Amino acid sequence: MKETREILLETRAALPALTASRERKNIALEKIADCLLKEQEEILAANRADVEAARSRYGEVMIDRLTLTKDRIAGMAQGVREVAALPDPEGRVIRRVERPNGLVIEKTSVPLGVIAIIYESRPNVTSDAAVLALKSGNAVILRGGKEAFRSNLAIVQAIRHGLEYSGLPASLVGFVEDTDHASADELMHAVGLVDLLIPRGGAGLIRRCTENAKVPCIQTGTGICHIFVDESADLDQALTIIENAKASRPSVCNAEEVLLVHKGIADTFLPRLQKHLTEERLLRSLPPVELRLDKAAAAIIPGIPAGEKDFDTEFLDYILAVAVVDDADAAIAHIARHSTGHSEAILTKNEENAKKFTALVDAAAVYVNVSTRFTDGGEFGLGCEMGISTQKLHARGPMGLEELNTYKYIVRGNGQIR
Amino acid sequence: MKETREILLETRAALPALTASRERKNIALEKIADCLLKEQEEILAANRADVEAARSRYGEVMIDRLTLTKDRIAGMAQGVREVAALPDPEGRVIRRVERPNGLVIEKTSVPLGVIAIIYESRPNVTSDAAVLALKSGNAVILRGGKEAFRSNLAIVQAIRHGLEYSGLPASLVGFVEDTDHASADELMHAVGLVDLLIPRGGAGLIRRCTENAKVPCIQTGTGICHIFVDESADLDQALTIIENAKASRPSVCNAEEVLLVHKGIADTFLPRLQKHLTEERLLRSLPPVELRLDKAAAAIIPGIPAGEKDFDTEFLDYILAVAVVDDADAAIAHIARHSTGHSEAILTKNEENAKKFTALVDAAAVYVNVSTRFTDGGEFGLGCEMGISTQKLHARGPMGLEELNTYKYIVRGNGQIR
Repeated sequence: MKETREILLETRAALPALTASRERKNIALEKIADCLLKEQEEILAANRADVEAARSRYGEVMIDRLTLTKDRIAGMAQGVREVAALPDPEGRVIRRVERPNGLVIEKTSVPLGVIAIIYESRPNVTSDAAVLALKSGNAVILRGGKEAFRSNLAIVQAIRHGLEYSGLPASLVGFVEDTDHASADELMHAVGLVDLLIPRGGAGLIRRCTENAKVPCIQTGTGICHIFVDESADLDQALTIIENAKASRPSVCNAEEVLLVHKGIADTFLPRLQKHLTEERLLRSLPPVELRLDKAAAAIIPGIPAGEKDFDTEFLDYILAVAVVDDADAAIAHIARHSTGHSEAILTKNEENAKKFTALVDAAAVYVNVSTRFTDGGEFGLGCEMGISTQKLHARGPMGLEELNTYKYIVRGNGQIR
Repeated sequence: MKETREILLETRAALPALTASRERKNIALEKIADCLLKEQEEILAANRADVEAARSRYGEVMIDRLTLTKDRIAGMAQGVREVAALPDPEGRVIRRVERPNGLVIEKTSVPLGVIAIIYESRPNVTSDAAVLALKSGNAVILRGGKEAFRSNLAIVQAIRHGLEYSGLPASLVGFVEDTDHASADELMHAVGLVDLLIPRGGAGLIRRCTENAKVPCIQTGTGICHIFVDESADLDQALTIIENAKASRPSVCNAEEVLLVHKGIADTFLPRLQKHLTEERLLRSLPPVELRLDKAAAAIIPGIPAGEKDFDTEFLDYILAVAVVDDADAAIAHIARHSTGHSEAILTKNEENAKKFTALVDAAAVYVNVSTRFTDGGEFGLGCEMGISTQKLHARGPMGLEELNTYKYIVRGNGQIR
């Protein structure tokens, strides 16, 4: 097994070749897509071995996430070609000034350098992440989960063959062979070798990275998303939006976890909500949503009383915490106390409250009369997504290609001194 | 003495009042400038006490940095008015997209929230830092050094009176009364209360912050800046640029510390350089520059042999480490090994080498035929500067008002679901 340290050094050493050959990036991506298809039998065989080994230890959902098919590999290759077709973020002049002394200063977007990604489940993340990093001019170090090891390795082999066919070094894509905690820790501490660490996975992984990383790290994905139904909201629309935000895909980070209802409409709205999310969903053969109610809500509709913890939990399930609040200010104050800074929505016809909410709520995405489910690179028009940042430094919300770049100032003159 | 924790909570609690009253920011800044002048007697008295206490323990340079005069206070007030006149970074729509489904998505610049600044020496940093934070919409927590405590407190009082006159809460500017390590540590660990920590001071302070901070932190200021004199450089111009970069103000972070000379011109250039930086400076009654030479340079001119450490030292003094390199590639490789990512320059008439250098050298500012001394908010046209970032995440190089903002996505619709 190759040492993680050795992989880090090799990947960094390969970086200048990519920086010097920007024009080859898209050729490389096309070759990578070709190789994924050409080597699909090897990838499928490796994947069968992973699935075989996992069958005794994991449930059906996990096995499904792990399993590759010809169609899924074709989808991966198609994804690579779509990324190739996106605009190149590198080399963009963000601001150009010509100073009175004749200096020409260009603030220019440049790659971060080496991006390390620690991820857990699905093997398609291997090609997604590698290709986004390469397209944005970065080398990448991949550290996937144990259960997908063989599949990930086969995919990385295909990617490296694609790089070689285009004349770029294979070691631009580093693959960590050790899947123990030790290798993740080594990436977190690789100061000077890793320019950005992106954890993609469960809350535990993300917490471990943000608490222990000595290298720059992006906090991704935890979403305790709120929707506030204001007194003036269109209540029919509110029912549709809430059901979509909560129940269209409860396992994702942009799903709603907490509903706040203005006290002026709670008496009429909450009974309708309960019917809509429980009985009516059962009639449509859909899983009902369990409501966890604060005291004021529990005085209006029957349901499970909410514990204080329920307003700080990312359920990722058909469960919704519900509270009644006095007004928009109270809703904003509740969100300030409990938000994870991901996505928050107000449903209202009151323009003043909408303005107040978007100004005062501190989150990556703030919505007016829209489901929180739209926080996504594709839906925001970025064309792709490396993850959703819930921090404020560098990138916030969906991270596309631009967010995988930093900038430098390139200054040209003819002998200026100060 | 007020607990640091209490100050953190008060400052954060004051933030929404600022967010809700953007239009009062400039009024507040004008009032702050007025109060600095109105209360100059109190500030000068406090400063006299600081200077008195410091006299036995510090040298003249330090005493000069600490001492305030009527002129210096007038300069501080003038600085505040100049910041007030700068464009407001808040609320700028960085990108607007209208999606096919009707969603209007505005990527909008917003303040970071609460910015904490740990600084060491000059009391004028107190008003500079507070005012840049306020102008960009942030609350601020100031933690200055022990030796300037009374001066800093008097300046903060004047700032708070200015805030009160404009109807904004005085606690938008928090002042940490404890000047021990414990209070700095508390700021570094104030997760959820501090959105950005900026250390302004010596290398020790900055290292302590970047290594221990649990809150987001900007690495500032360490500059081991290189100048590479290529074979084709204008050698007369090179002498002028090198003297300026090294000796115009050796104590600052954008001063040159290392000179790399192409081997093809070393024989002619190094003797001229030595004469220019030593004998000729002595004739002009200027301090000579001590040269620390690698083997190849020492074979051409006399001087102190460089230890390996000399190529990794921020001298901040009239000392220059000199090495002879084979070509531009070797210079780029040397810089990659030894750079702190601050400012690096090539002097050349060869356009290909200039392009290669600006593409491959990984630093906040990369110069062609210019002194490194220009890395500065004012010189870059930002109008002001909170510090110079040597990290790649969020901000790089001089940090002006824009760099004290993050962004959020404000999304408006009419009932869209996904």
